[in-house]
Amino acid sequence: MAARTPARPDRTDGSGSSDPADGSAAPDRTARLVVLVSGSGTNLQALIDAIAADPDYGARIVAVGADRDGIAGLERAERAGIPTFVVRVKDHADRAGWDEALTRATAAFAPDLVVSAGFMKIVGAAFLARFGGRLVNTHPALLPSFPGAHGVRDALAYGVKVTGCTVHFVDDGVDSGPVIAQSVVEVREDDTEDALHERIKDVERRLLVDVVGRLSRDGYRIEGRKVRIPA
Amino acid sequence: MAARTPARPDRTDGSGSSDPADGSAAPDRTARLVVLVSGSGTNLQALIDAIAADPDYGARIVAVGADRDGIAGLERAERAGIPTFVVRVKDHADRAGWDEALTRATAAFAPDLVVSAGFMKIVGAAFLARFGGRLVNTHPALLPSFPGAHGVRDALAYGVKVTGCTVHFVDDGVDSGPVIAQSVVEVREDDTEDALHERIKDVERRLLVDVVGRLSRDGYRIEGRKVRIPA
Repeated sequence: MAARTPARPDRTDGSGSSDPADGSAAPDRTARLVVLVSGSGTNLQALIDAIAADPDYGARIVAVGADRDGIAGLERAERAGIPTFVVRVKDHADRAGWDEALTRATAAFAPDLVVSAGFMKIVGAAFLARFGGRLVNTHPALLPSFPGAHGVRDALAYGVKVTGCTVHFVDDGVDSGPVIAQSVVEVREDDTEDALHERIKDVERRLLVDVVGRLSRDGYRIEGRKVRIPA
Repeated sequence: MAARTPARPDRTDGSGSSDPADGSAAPDRTARLVVLVSGSGTNLQALIDAIAADPDYGARIVAVGADRDGIAGLERAERAGIPTFVVRVKDHADRAGWDEALTRATAAFAPDLVVSAGFMKIVGAAFLARFGGRLVNTHPALLPSFPGAHGVRDALAYGVKVTGCTVHFVDDGVDSGPVIAQSVVEVREDDTEDALHERIKDVERRLLVDVVGRLSRDGYRIEGRKVRIPA
């Protein structure tokens, strides 16, 4: 039973809004998010919009990180005035070196939560050592069914009648970490992978925004495989 | 792509209501069900009640089979005037002999569908050779998550937020056959296995009654892993 730091800790250590990596004047008790993207950044945009729309959302995005240049996700961040960083695998001697660089770049922004929002790389030991229990990911299936890169295709091939999405903390397995929330999407007769995936993404965006807000406002504990968010 | 006999075939072969094992005067196009039970028979009772309540349900129970004596499921059948049979493993030299005897006993009632309603034995090769694609089972989880004997306990241990039940055709794997229908049940904070299982059983009874009625009235095809029921 491992109690983890809530996403909105009391900042008795003097960090928080005074962190030089951010510099914004947000109140102490707003959770700091780093969002990792690899592509279009639609989940990132949903978070940006939710934060802009709700002064009580409880979190702010202090940086957006990516594993590649020139993606729409980075443009969305820049348009919203959010600092960005890029850590590319090919700029490092090996995957471990990349993982350590990503860890350092992320740690510089002192996040309470790291959100993998369509980030297509699997982070390594250094990243998990630093951000384990604080790294939130989404998966387009009802885990533990259909883990891996083809959650939607695999669900269709199996012939399930319901699938959905899972928001979970990342551990060192493939989509195997503690589940935070799940939403259900019905599979339609003669569904295609694209059509089903679009409906899942719709639900996923809303679920992610809801979950990150609740984790940020209310804090949480991870007890074994159970994620507890105070009601 | 294997097209299977619909549960409500045209009886051009002369079988059907004239089958001597049944003897009732139901119309030709009512599907014949054999229901297999091992315990309390609550799913059996739900089917009995649905058939009694709805003259257009499309199926009738021609026999109830069990793997043991003295269970409430058999009493329910007798109370409803339904023929019963018991085939016990210990009365046979080995499991294969039991399976063949169960197959013969079931086949004597010429079922269109066989419904495993809390039947606690795994049927063997002989039974599947005869009734594959016609043997309906329920499982208290959203397959392929949590197959096996402890679907509810395993779901709680994993920490999923939604689970449910699956009605599927039985194949030679463990809870791995083509999915016919699934229903979702939310896991509650601090759920117990018993409380969750009760909520799943509620949903499962209704889903099984619905599915058996649809298969019986509308027929179906199994195409690979997809079960198609005409709308």
